[in-house]
Amino acid sequence: MTYTLVLLRHGESEWNAKNLFTGWVDVALSEKGTEEAKRGGQLLTEAGVLPDVVHTSLLRRAITTANLSLDAADRHWIPVKRSWRLNERHYGALQGKNKKQTLEEFGEEQFMLWRRSYDVPPPEIELGSEFSQDADPRYADAPVVRTECLKDVLERALPYWEGEVVPDLKAGKTVLVAAHGNSLRAIVKHLDGISDEDIAALNIPTGIPLLYELDEDLKPVTKGGRYLDPEAAAKAAAAVANQGR
Amino acid sequence: MTYTLVLLRHGESEWNAKNLFTGWVDVALSEKGTEEAKRGGQLLTEAGVLPDVVHTSLLRRAITTANLSLDAADRHWIPVKRSWRLNERHYGALQGKNKKQTLEEFGEEQFMLWRRSYDVPPPEIELGSEFSQDADPRYADAPVVRTECLKDVLERALPYWEGEVVPDLKAGKTVLVAAHGNSLRAIVKHLDGISDEDIAALNIPTGIPLLYELDEDLKPVTKGGRYLDPEAAAKAAAAVANQGR
Repeated sequence: MTYTLVLLRHGESEWNAKNLFTGWVDVALSEKGTEEAKRGGQLLTEAGVLPDVVHTSLLRRAITTANLSLDAADRHWIPVKRSWRLNERHYGALQGKNKKQTLEEFGEEQFMLWRRSYDVPPPEIELGSEFSQDADPRYADAPVVRTECLKDVLERALPYWEGEVVPDLKAGKTVLVAAHGNSLRAIVKHLDGISDEDIAALNIPTGIPLLYELDEDLKPVTKGGRYLDPEAAAKAAAAVANQGR
Repeated sequence: MTYTLVLLRHGESEWNAKNLFTGWVDVALSEKGTEEAKRGGQLLTEAGVLPDVVHTSLLRRAITTANLSLDAADRHWIPVKRSWRLNERHYGALQGKNKKQTLEEFGEEQFMLWRRSYDVPPPEIELGSEFSQDADPRYADAPVVRTECLKDVLERALPYWEGEVVPDLKAGKTVLVAAHGNSLRAIVKHLDGISDEDIAALNIPTGIPLLYELDEDLKPVTKGGRYLDPEAAAKAAAAVANQGR
């Protein structure tokens, strides 16, 4: 008896395409991202992996990715659950800033610390400023978030994982989690037992379903899972690592 | 203290455009239907009617309409609930048949009886045939449906109304129900206390939000509610009445 989990990072967004830090800013998929989302659904169909329930963040790039991929897989009718706990990492004062300019302004070391350190968050965003979400009604039930490191993401994502995703898995459902680079890295870190240091090197490509078979203790049968298009995943992960260059 | 309900019939589907009986056949929105759905969301925004929760059928024309209109209204992140009980009327053996041909084959009287009588269902569909849904996994928890009259729709929709929609209304939520011509006629018949005879003349246009303010007893403050684009609604309702001509 194994449990089936599928992780899906949203397709390219308009700000991925522009190389801006996005975080909780609610941008739409680019045209490329729209196509990636549909192809994600085709990959699910081809692999015969049919989700019974989907969990998404509260951000439209993940929600639209879920909608489009599930429609392509003829599973648009399954139950949907959403939570801010699956949101992308809040990028603090960097939200809305260009990655290349940030790299040039603050230098390689600071840039990589903000992007990839486990526990150093960027500076806090100013409340009420253009790219802050402190007044957004969708976060009425969430704490006010002003910046996050990956550790923060893991600490707010895990209660949702344990409280909402695990019960669906244990009920025997094939579970799709449609979310973001960093919320999915947090889940993968937890599942695969990756160290605080090693997680820095892990990139998750957009739009390619990552399949995990989990044993009775919810440990991965194969560490790292299996991308439904491994070749495209390897290529895309390398490209993510080069962002900001 | 009033409760706020919005009913939204899906935008034009590929089979609406082809003048085919659709029922439970899961066809996609046409291009026109896609635009109608987005415009429905704009109408919500303009009216300041912002849904807190959405209920849909299990059919993609309603699901996609909900997705597109909520995205246009910046409410894509709200909770979603779905049920076969909000599905379009099952059109039995007529599913997949051309409306005009059916009119010519069976004559005006029989045609109108099937389309508009309250309690005469079309002939049952053959199980296992092309347009039957008896083997569709999404209906695993539903009874096998082979045909329905409007009375059948009302009888299967009301338990969902009472059990799932009413509690959301009573919790003070603005509730969007994205569904179909006949499942929405059933709800409107119940809300407005329309007789079995008079419901025949009621048509609900596609893609135009129908707003109901309900009093403490869940009776409409204004009978018939209010379309957010009344002019377009009147025009479209007249066109629906002429289908099959």
